Amino acid sequence: MVNTLFLPELREMLAEKNRAELEEFCTTLNPGRTAEFMEGLSNEEAWEVLQFAEASRRSEIFGYFNEERQVAMLSDHEPSQVAALVEEIPADDRVDLIQELSDERVREILPLLPVKDRRNIQRLRSYQEETAGGLMTTEVAKLGQKLTVRQALDELGRQASQLETIYYLYVVDEDDSLRGIVSTRQLVSSLAHPELTLGEMMETDVVVALVSEDQESVAQKVERFNLLAIPVVDASRRLLGIITHDDVIDVVREELTEDAQRIAAVAPLEDDFLRIRLLTLSWKRGIWLTILFFAALLTAFALRHYEEELKQFVWLVWFIPLIISAGGNSGSQSATLVITAMTSGQVKFRDWRRVLVRESIVSLVLGGFLATIGFCVAVMVAPSFHDALVIPITLLAVIVCGCMCGASLPIAFKRAGLDPALMSNPFVAGIVDILGIVIYINVGRMLLG
Amino acid sequence: MVNTLFLPELREMLAEKNRAELEEFCTTLNPGRTAEFMEGLSNEEAWEVLQFAEASRRSEIFGYFNEERQVAMLSDHEPSQVAALVEEIPADDRVDLIQELSDERVREILPLLPVKDRRNIQRLRSYQEETAGGLMTTEVAKLGQKLTVRQALDELGRQASQLETIYYLYVVDEDDSLRGIVSTRQLVSSLAHPELTLGEMMETDVVVALVSEDQESVAQKVERFNLLAIPVVDASRRLLGIITHDDVIDVVREELTEDAQRIAAVAPLEDDFLRIRLLTLSWKRGIWLTILFFAALLTAFALRHYEEELKQFVWLVWFIPLIISAGGNSGSQSATLVITAMTSGQVKFRDWRRVLVRESIVSLVLGGFLATIGFCVAVMVAPSFHDALVIPITLLAVIVCGCMCGASLPIAFKRAGLDPALMSNPFVAGIVDILGIVIYINVGRMLLG
Repeated sequence: MVNTLFLPELREMLAEKNRAELEEFCTTLNPGRTAEFMEGLSNEEAWEVLQFAEASRRSEIFGYFNEERQVAMLSDHEPSQVAALVEEIPADDRVDLIQELSDERVREILPLLPVKDRRNIQRLRSYQEETAGGLMTTEVAKLGQKLTVRQALDELGRQASQLETIYYLYVVDEDDSLRGIVSTRQLVSSLAHPELTLGEMMETDVVVALVSEDQESVAQKVERFNLLAIPVVDASRRLLGIITHDDVIDVVREELTEDAQRIAAVAPLEDDFLRIRLLTLSWKRGIWLTILFFAALLTAFALRHYEEELKQFVWLVWFIPLIISAGGNSGSQSATLVITAMTSGQVKFRDWRRVLVRESIVSLVLGGFLATIGFCVAVMVAPSFHDALVIPITLLAVIVCGCMCGASLPIAFKRAGLDPALMSNPFVAGIVDILGIVIYINVGRMLLG
Repeated sequence: MVNTLFLPELREMLAEKNRAELEEFCTTLNPGRTAEFMEGLSNEEAWEVLQFAEASRRSEIFGYFNEERQVAMLSDHEPSQVAALVEEIPADDRVDLIQELSDERVREILPLLPVKDRRNIQRLRSYQEETAGGLMTTEVAKLGQKLTVRQALDELGRQASQLETIYYLYVVDEDDSLRGIVSTRQLVSSLAHPELTLGEMMETDVVVALVSEDQESVAQKVERFNLLAIPVVDASRRLLGIITHDDVIDVVREELTEDAQRIAAVAPLEDDFLRIRLLTLSWKRGIWLTILFFAALLTAFALRHYEEELKQFVWLVWFIPLIISAGGNSGSQSATLVITAMTSGQVKFRDWRRVLVRESIVSLVLGGFLATIGFCVAVMVAPSFHDALVIPITLLAVIVCGCMCGASLPIAFKRAGLDPALMSNPFVAGIVDILGIVIYINVGRMLLG
């Protein structure tokens, strides 16, 4: 919902160039809320308002705009103003934004930044997206192990304004190699012993992420160990940066949303649903729809193959959609449950036997139940009690096949090093469709032929 | 993967009652890793090892066991030992665990706890699960606004060991009413001005959660404002507790997993996939499968109704599964995309017009493409070029219907105050199945009749 509460006042202040009030607007509220109140303004107006905030506040407010607005603002304005803003944006967010700008624009802005920031940006840009390196920020509190509690606190006081977060202090040696961590909490509660050194109090068994580690694995570590931030190191344990909890929430949301989309046979959008280009969206959906379409075409050939049987027992035709959908639905339930359980780490490859045993029991229960209902209906339309048996027998067989297929494919994909969510549901649907028809007609042949 | 690296050594230490080594095992590694190494031990053995850790460490390690083991441990051992452990567990986790114990057990343990903890537990138990109150911990750093930086730091030093987190200090008045917050970072970077008071430095525009607020809404606030912790207040703004970022990650994961499961027509499991009882699992799946089954039964009646047409044009039968699945797949894509976009806040109710326009364009592109392929195939089997047109026309119509249905139902459910993920995909599937058949036969009638 766009918050329009302050819009008229804001526009009036802008028209009057009311410095005092605009400055107050930028400082009184928390930066997130300030950004929210500015949502209704044009990019141009919002940029004007931002100029009344002091540098660090400006970048904080800017950080709460949506990406579209951020990119537009950085693309449109005076390079020197833009560079001043970019300098203040946290290192990890800054790199992500710069990736979105045109090469020409980047060439205009980079030279205006201090050498330190420029190097930092170039280094961060070299890491792959979706890895720890692509997520981390380099702004981290590094301290030597000989510092005392009192000295560390003073040093931290000096560094704090430059840092995104200070939940942990990272203790490093001369080569920047990570030796241990001290939490701010530990530091503060050790104020009574100001002569203790960081080396004496630090936790040496530190959970770290390798710079090339996949973001999903990083998120799992952070969740498992309830971390506020995880240090990122290279192969020789040099501390390169940290990944903070807010980036981890984003990763969790992104990965799970992708799962849900893949389950519904959509290639992950990687963009806002309302902002993605329609042609891109059509492609991301069309590719899977087409594959599924060809799978379903096979059912047409199968049915054509059984033309004689279907002519002989016309009533069998009526139940075709029912049987296919029962198999498809139960299969997609199984696949989704196994996929979500694997994403959250509840199911590992080694559990495959247990999963299949459990699924076979559940599928017998479900199949048995639906077969019973199916039989009651079939009795009403089939020529005889005996003929009606085709329906429940087929249903039971198809549902068991659907569940087994749905449960085993994601595990097999995972084993093959693929994303279990990637193709499971479409594959299951395709296989179960064909299998359903083949089982159906053959059961019919045996009982009726 | 169960880590078996240390198991033999651990068992040997236990057999020898080697106090020194066991104590070292409990302190050297970080608590999460210690718990991981103990995974292969029996509950009995793990409990024995825990006794060698000092009280606060013991509860930390315990916190990393899975819930099953935690509940078993609290249920089986000496009430006095258990109470000593429970006293050390963070307030929010403690309440969740106590809910899992038998009433009898709770009656044994509660009286052994200090009055303060007992009251705290009773109060937290009174809040509903899935609300801010049910998630929060009461261990929060409350300070008065007259304290100076130096005094605040000292006071924090005294409180810190009792608190789960100290990222923010909460400034309250005499009635515990929340006046503002000061981040630990601010505090530490103000060390150069030790005479500043909290009242002077605090941020007064604080994002809060109401105690009765739904957990999904709380998670959205924390994400939107990048918070480490959000204060929970009652209607008169009294500070009751805080919710920390790790609980928020859990909420995000839980809500999105439920979405994926609902999309696949499974009632949310609310338990581990491998641990949930098979009867419960069958119920959570069977209820939706049955509803879908009855929806699909309607297709049987529809087909029966069109018996004459199908006898006359037998080749139409071959394409029934193809047409139904094309409609179903495109509808489930639309529904899933809209649902995930709504969960992440990208799509609001007010966007419905834009969503429908975009979906109709995409559905025409997708439908047009698949209709073309369908036509090429139909030409090969249909009696004439003209007859073959039934297939592409039907495909286009069904895919457009599927997409519109899939996009509008979740929005309508949301508008009606229901969970958009709850029934959308099953409903879409049901509607599209029937619609597909009706459209198919009627197009056939018009062109062939």
